Amino acid sequence: MRTTKHPLFTSKETPADAELASHKLMLQAGLIRRLASGLYTWLPLGLRVLRKVEAVVREEMDNAGAQELLMPAVQPAELWQESGRWGQYGKLLLKIKDRHEREFCFGPTHEEVITDLARRELKSYKQLPICFYQIQTKFRDETRPRFGVMRAREFVMKDAYSFHSDQESLAERYAAMYDAYTRIFTRLGLTFRAVQADTGDIGGSASHEFHVLADAGEDALAVSDTSDYAANVELAEAVQPAAPRPVPSASLTAVDVPTQEDPASLSQALDIPLQQCLKTILIEAEDGGLIALVLRADHELNEVKAAKLAGAAAPLRFPSADRIREAFGCSPASVGPIGLSIPVIADRAAAAVADFACGANRPGQYWTGANWQRDLPEPEVHDLRNVVAGDASPDGHGRLQITRGIEVGHIFQLGQKYTEALGASVLDEQGRSQIPTMGCYGIGVSRLVAAAIEQHHDERGIIWPSAISPFQVALVSLNMAKSPQVAAASEQLYQQLTAAGIEVLWDDREARPGVKFADMELIGIPHRVVVSDRNLENNCVEYRHRRDSNSQNVPFDAIVEFLREY
Amino acid sequence: MRTTKHPLFTSKETPADAELASHKLMLQAGLIRRLASGLYTWLPLGLRVLRKVEAVVREEMDNAGAQELLMPAVQPAELWQESGRWGQYGKLLLKIKDRHEREFCFGPTHEEVITDLARRELKSYKQLPICFYQIQTKFRDETRPRFGVMRAREFVMKDAYSFHSDQESLAERYAAMYDAYTRIFTRLGLTFRAVQADTGDIGGSASHEFHVLADAGEDALAVSDTSDYAANVELAEAVQPAAPRPVPSASLTAVDVPTQEDPASLSQALDIPLQQCLKTILIEAEDGGLIALVLRADHELNEVKAAKLAGAAAPLRFPSADRIREAFGCSPASVGPIGLSIPVIADRAAAAVADFACGANRPGQYWTGANWQRDLPEPEVHDLRNVVAGDASPDGHGRLQITRGIEVGHIFQLGQKYTEALGASVLDEQGRSQIPTMGCYGIGVSRLVAAAIEQHHDERGIIWPSAISPFQVALVSLNMAKSPQVAAASEQLYQQLTAAGIEVLWDDREARPGVKFADMELIGIPHRVVVSDRNLENNCVEYRHRRDSNSQNVPFDAIVEFLREY
Repeated sequence: MRTTKHPLFTSKETPADAELASHKLMLQAGLIRRLASGLYTWLPLGLRVLRKVEAVVREEMDNAGAQELLMPAVQPAELWQESGRWGQYGKLLLKIKDRHEREFCFGPTHEEVITDLARRELKSYKQLPICFYQIQTKFRDETRPRFGVMRAREFVMKDAYSFHSDQESLAERYAAMYDAYTRIFTRLGLTFRAVQADTGDIGGSASHEFHVLADAGEDALAVSDTSDYAANVELAEAVQPAAPRPVPSASLTAVDVPTQEDPASLSQALDIPLQQCLKTILIEAEDGGLIALVLRADHELNEVKAAKLAGAAAPLRFPSADRIREAFGCSPASVGPIGLSIPVIADRAAAAVADFACGANRPGQYWTGANWQRDLPEPEVHDLRNVVAGDASPDGHGRLQITRGIEVGHIFQLGQKYTEALGASVLDEQGRSQIPTMGCYGIGVSRLVAAAIEQHHDERGIIWPSAISPFQVALVSLNMAKSPQVAAASEQLYQQLTAAGIEVLWDDREARPGVKFADMELIGIPHRVVVSDRNLENNCVEYRHRRDSNSQNVPFDAIVEFLREY
Repeated sequence: MRTTKHPLFTSKETPADAELASHKLMLQAGLIRRLASGLYTWLPLGLRVLRKVEAVVREEMDNAGAQELLMPAVQPAELWQESGRWGQYGKLLLKIKDRHEREFCFGPTHEEVITDLARRELKSYKQLPICFYQIQTKFRDETRPRFGVMRAREFVMKDAYSFHSDQESLAERYAAMYDAYTRIFTRLGLTFRAVQADTGDIGGSASHEFHVLADAGEDALAVSDTSDYAANVELAEAVQPAAPRPVPSASLTAVDVPTQEDPASLSQALDIPLQQCLKTILIEAEDGGLIALVLRADHELNEVKAAKLAGAAAPLRFPSADRIREAFGCSPASVGPIGLSIPVIADRAAAAVADFACGANRPGQYWTGANWQRDLPEPEVHDLRNVVAGDASPDGHGRLQITRGIEVGHIFQLGQKYTEALGASVLDEQGRSQIPTMGCYGIGVSRLVAAAIEQHHDERGIIWPSAISPFQVALVSLNMAKSPQVAAASEQLYQQLTAAGIEVLWDDREARPGVKFADMELIGIPHRVVVSDRNLENNCVEYRHRRDSNSQNVPFDAIVEFLREY
């Protein structure tokens, strides 16, 4: 393609609201344009990338035996009422009334529609297992759409759904999808991890998220440095410390310190390591009382874990500072586990500390040299904290690292939630009615484009992984209008490369070399070939890979073969 | 693909609401399923066809130099308010409110969005001409969705938009699009006509509709039997009769006939050919009076033409029978042009009749032997009627035939309607601000699938044109479970055909031959190859084209080459 005929829409402007590199670069490189909040037009260059991602996803879905179909974007309310999600889904669901005042929504996902199809079309166990997928525009009315296509309202998604006679068949398909996802993200040239995930609102049992690793990711992930263990920090288990609790060696001593709300300052003031200071966090109990959670001061409470404690109010609630002052006669920071008349639950790590410091339940007073069992009862112990870098991996292999990820895929073993709610059934081998069990498998196709850029860019622009680059080669002709030689050589090269099946973007504009180089670097095409009078004098062209900082001269006659080898 | 792994969803049921053959066949062949009124799921087999249509459209748009992009389906109300269509478009526009009560619509077309993009991105005449297109899901909230995907609410459309500095450039692009459309419909294997069309609500000057010819078409088209003249009957000109009006030969005679509201009965009762009976149709005038339109009794009034008469009330209105009785003292059928004190306008054909019969403005009385100029003033003459088969073609070549068509494409020279309303402008060569002129070009991609079936089917099912058939070859294996020979030969053939790049649907189900043959005929795959024990005994397979009624034996070793030649 020639830039004179297929113009670039590059821009130097950096929109104020573009916080992420991918958002900024997609606008500057002319991949997308904003129409309204969370609504983006994919310009020709961006659409080429989107279609390449789609093609890889489609191929791997087909290879995995899933069958492509296309369901309507607009879905009748009745189906969502049957599943119970019409109310549950909240304002994320974009509701619509048609000319007859009938209610519909712009589908954010298609469990209901596919289950409706299944209950009409599937009659016998012989039709199972079966797996359908589609690549389609979806809508979620986000409270705060942001980061460009990373969290847009309208977006392109691949959603697949499978139906099975039994759990074994579901598990098999789930594993096949896991493998297909692995192949997809690998082919796309992305560094990613599959992590165990919560099944959340969608329901079901097993679930994995696929994350593209990038500093800008919204999710914190705990990843083993040795095994393939990976989990969302929300869910990663902080295992029992390997070493037993040391024997007490200090005596319990009351110390007066001006109130220190911040654990680090307290640790400094007491001259006791942070790991030996315990903090007490109060939560509300189901019965209206309070529960004390004790953690090491250097650890963070994991609210997902705390919410699962027996006796805790649901959802998790924290008492106000006023209520704490009223109940304990001191500020929240001075609360400690000794002498408390409410339940005390210690995190595994906190329960393994000896000679610790903690609040004394009196303003400005702390204990040092405190010990479980000796100075206060042995506590109930639970995993209550977020894992931190260096923690042992829960699978017993290696240590955890904390990294950030962008969720680009999610697979679920749904079970019978939707088939049951919508009354889908088939006849089994004995002619008895049976409710199929279901899996669902999503990929954020448009988000993947942004995620790839987050992972692959530098200060000059995008650096596309080969599989999704809009073009493989940028052919830059310098001063073409004045040099018939450059024009002829460029034209010849363009024809040869195109004939060799290489996707070329020929920058044949009349613009300064610097402008053209900057544009090509911004839009991130892996291979750049420059045709200039100076190089042609030596029968050469200049070649540079987008990742390299130096160019090399390649004989004109050899460049096509040179590029073909990549 | 194997039917055991990629099951067919064929069905014998004929839904009561399926009036058209295409609608019925798409449901029976398992191409689509209804989700709700005007909302259809494309099953895997149907989606294959839809994608093939899309691919042809995409290729020809790319060849024509149009650039593909993808705009959001959801569009902000503000843009439609700027163009003035937020109110004008009526209830066809599906309006939506988001969580913040901001108004949007599900785009039925994208003139506003593309013009918004143009006003932001196009700054200079040097960027013109430029042409964008997209293939996208659209929504029109039809009053009465029907005929399956032929008139669905949610549908797939290719919409293209071009921007130009001047009319000459627009006309050039318009011609290029006309040619591209011609190539598309030709490649799709369809019999079609491009017809001159009204520009209607969308605005602009020149416009052509592309119609697939089929008896079930909603539009009546007038088509020359000699030239490429074609027009919607609404717009086709009925030319001045070639022969001059005969000289009067009869004398004006009043005849009493019991009132005959029906022209044919009257003609019979008077024993005068229908073509010599004139009927008078009254319309309301702008000034509150009436206007008499006189046509031959065998012709039909064309309301589009009548509405354009100077002095006629807009929109066209007909007086009630009561008002006519009050004004003329007789029934509408007895009204005639002689002695009227209101304006009389005759159709060209009616003005060329001599010795005619007409109403005498008295109950049950008619004139015969009436003549213009002699018995009543020479009338004002206009083209007022629908053309009929046998009329001379307005381009002077051949005679008109009346045929029916399904509109599948529409191209418009829009002019500056949208660029002006949205304030899009570029700087011209002299640095002056200039408003670009626009063209727009649509194709009903999903409708094309139904239109192709309307044109290509028989009583047994669909007969796909090769370019859009979901598969090229149906490989039918008989009694495979009992015959290892059939199984092995089928497997071998399947592998060979696939390796040869031929798309094969292998019907490897355990079902009666009749069931399998009926299914393959229903889904309309062009080439059928049957592998059976009987044929393998002679080292043959049985071949039949979907259009043929007889089969032929082809040597097993020769069948791949045989099919490849097609």
